[in-house]
Amino acid sequence: MDSKRLKNVLANMENTGISQILISDPFSIFYLTGRRIDPGERFVGIYLNKNGTHKMFINKLFTVPEDLGIEKIWYSDREDGMELLGKYTDHSLPLGVDKIFPARFLIPLMEYKAASFYINASSCVDEARALKDGEEQEKMRAVSRMNDKAMEELQKRIRGGMTELELSSELDKIYKELGSEGYSFKTLVGFGANAAKGHHEPDRTKLQEGDCVLIDMGCKKDDYCADMTRTFFYQYAAPQHKKIYEIVKRANEEAEAVIKPGVRFCDIDKTARDIIEKEGYGDCFTHRLGHFIGLEVHEQGDVSAANTAVAKSGMIFSVEPGIYLEGETGVRIEDLVLVTENGCEILNHYSKKMQTIGS
Amino acid sequence: MDSKRLKNVLANMENTGISQILISDPFSIFYLTGRRIDPGERFVGIYLNKNGTHKMFINKLFTVPEDLGIEKIWYSDREDGMELLGKYTDHSLPLGVDKIFPARFLIPLMEYKAASFYINASSCVDEARALKDGEEQEKMRAVSRMNDKAMEELQKRIRGGMTELELSSELDKIYKELGSEGYSFKTLVGFGANAAKGHHEPDRTKLQEGDCVLIDMGCKKDDYCADMTRTFFYQYAAPQHKKIYEIVKRANEEAEAVIKPGVRFCDIDKTARDIIEKEGYGDCFTHRLGHFIGLEVHEQGDVSAANTAVAKSGMIFSVEPGIYLEGETGVRIEDLVLVTENGCEILNHYSKKMQTIGS
Repeated sequence: MDSKRLKNVLANMENTGISQILISDPFSIFYLTGRRIDPGERFVGIYLNKNGTHKMFINKLFTVPEDLGIEKIWYSDREDGMELLGKYTDHSLPLGVDKIFPARFLIPLMEYKAASFYINASSCVDEARALKDGEEQEKMRAVSRMNDKAMEELQKRIRGGMTELELSSELDKIYKELGSEGYSFKTLVGFGANAAKGHHEPDRTKLQEGDCVLIDMGCKKDDYCADMTRTFFYQYAAPQHKKIYEIVKRANEEAEAVIKPGVRFCDIDKTARDIIEKEGYGDCFTHRLGHFIGLEVHEQGDVSAANTAVAKSGMIFSVEPGIYLEGETGVRIEDLVLVTENGCEILNHYSKKMQTIGS
Repeated sequence: MDSKRLKNVLANMENTGISQILISDPFSIFYLTGRRIDPGERFVGIYLNKNGTHKMFINKLFTVPEDLGIEKIWYSDREDGMELLGKYTDHSLPLGVDKIFPARFLIPLMEYKAASFYINASSCVDEARALKDGEEQEKMRAVSRMNDKAMEELQKRIRGGMTELELSSELDKIYKELGSEGYSFKTLVGFGANAAKGHHEPDRTKLQEGDCVLIDMGCKKDDYCADMTRTFFYQYAAPQHKKIYEIVKRANEEAEAVIKPGVRFCDIDKTARDIIEKEGYGDCFTHRLGHFIGLEVHEQGDVSAANTAVAKSGMIFSVEPGIYLEGETGVRIEDLVLVTENGCEILNHYSKKMQTIGS
C-alpha cells in the first residue's frame, strides 16, 4: 500500500463523513497497491475503515505479494465473497462503494445487510487519483512525449487514396516501434465528413483531396494513458475549413492560457466555447471541453459547463475543442495539460499549426 | 431488435416472474440489436416491459440506426439519465437489472424510487445468450477454426531459448495474418514452472530443455470469441510429466464424451475430476472444468461442482482440465464444445496427442 495515497483517500473519507468504503475498481486497487489484478467475474476488493481495520478481500485464484501492507482475507470459488465481506463491515453505518461496483455484488451485499445504507463514494478515491503525484506526473509526461512522436511519424505516412483503416494500422506499427504497452482507447481516424461523427470508427473510406484528417489517439506506457488529437488537411483546405481550423486552434490555446489553480472548470470550458459561439459555430461544438486522465483514459472529473469545481495543482486533463460540420468536415485539437502552481504545463508538444499534406 | 432473441428474453422474464428489466451490458445490447455501443461512463440501456412498452435510453453522443425496432429516448449530458429512466419504469414493481449494472446508476435509480425493489435479473438475458442460435454456432465454429490454425502455426515457431514474450508476440503476427479482430483475452504462455501459476502473464523466462509450453489463447472473429489450450514439451518430457499429460488428456476426452442434453454440469466436471483424483492429483486441479463463451470469453454459466443445471442443445462452453505441479510444470488441455441433439460437437480440431518439440 502506498501510504501517502492511502492517507489522501482516508482524508477524503473524513471530509465526506464516511467511515467505511469498499474499493473494487482494479485501477484504484492498482493506484493504492501497485498491483494490477483483473478479477473478471470474481471479486477482489479493499475495505477501508477510518479506525484502521483495512482489509483486502481476494479470491484464492489470484496472487498478491506477501508484503502488500494490508491484511488479506482469502476466499475460494466455493464461498460467497459478499457474505464474507458482510462479516467484517459495520452494519450500523453506511458503506461507500465505488462507481463501478456491479449489481451482482451490491444487491447481495444489501441482502446480507452489510451496512445501514450504501452510497457512491467513488470520489474519495477518484479525487485522490485526480491529484497526480510527482511519479505520476513524470509518467504522464513520458507517455505524452511518446504520443507526440507517434503523431509526428504518423503524419508522414498519410497518403491520398489510403483508407482510414490503413492509416490506423500504421499507428499500430508506430506504437509498437516506440515500445507502447498498448492503446488508451480505440484510435479515431476520420477523413472528411467522417470527422464530424461523434464516435466514428476507422473504416474503408479513402482519403481524397480537400479532406480533413482527424486523428484522436493515445498510447499507454508504464500504466498511464496518453490522449491527443490533431487535424490535418489533404492537398488543400477549403476557405471555410481553414477558418474553422483557426477558430478551434484559438479556442484550444486561449482555454489553455486561463488554466491555473483556482479557476473553475466551467470557466475553462466557457473560454473555448465563447470563442466558437461568437464565430457562429456554437451548435457545432457538441461536447464538453475535456476530461481527466491518468491510469484510465477517462477518469472522474471533466471540463464542462456543469463542473463548478476549481483546478488544483497536479490535476491532468484534456483540452479538446472542436467544430463539426455534419456531412462535410470536422476539426478538433486536443492536448493534455498538467495544472502547475502558477498556470499549466502542456504535455503535448506536437505542432498545432495548420498543415496541408501532399500539397 | 432480433425478434427471436427478444422473444426468448421475454419468455425468461415470464418464467422468473419479472415484469420489467433494464439491460445495460453492451454485449447484451449487441446481442439484441446487432449494434455495439461502448458508452464509457455514460448510460445506454434497453428497458423491457412484459406489456411491450420497450424503450432504449441513449445519450445523444451515440448514433444508432433509425430502424432499430425499439422506441428511443434520447438524453443529453445535461440531463440525468437515471431520473429520466425513473419516469418510465413501474414504481410499484421490482426492476431487474443486469449483473454489471454499476453502483453509479443503481444507487441514484433507488433514490428516484424507480421500482419497489431491485434484483439481479441478468440471467433473463444470459440464459438466452447461452443457447446459441444457428448463426452464432457458425461464427463459433469459424473462430475456433481460426484458433486451430493459429495454434498449428504457433507450434512451429517454438524455439529453445526464446522467451514467453517472444512466443506470444509471434501469436500477434499469426492472428493478424489470419484476419482476427483481436484477442478474446490476454494470451497465457507459460514455460516450465510458470505453467503451474494460475494467472501468469508471459514474461522474459526462456524456454529450456524439459520445459512444458502451456499456451492458452483465443482470437475474435465476427464478434465471437475462441479459447483453446494446448501443452507441449520442449526437447523431452520427464516421465512424471508424460504421465500427467496423459491423465489430463484422458480427463478432457472422457468429460467431452459424456456431454449431451440433460447431463448436469457438475457431473461433467466430476467425470474429469474423478480421473485426476483417482490418479492422486486431485489437489493439483485447482479450478472448475469450464466456462460458457460466446460474445464474451466468460459468459454466465460454468462447468463446476456447484452447477447442478443441465446441458442443453446449443450451449457452448470450454472443457479444460489441468494438473499443476507448483514450482515444476503444468498441463492443461482445453477445447470448446457445442452441445448437439445427441451429444456434443468439439469445436477445436488441433491435435491433443502429446508432442515433444525439437527432439
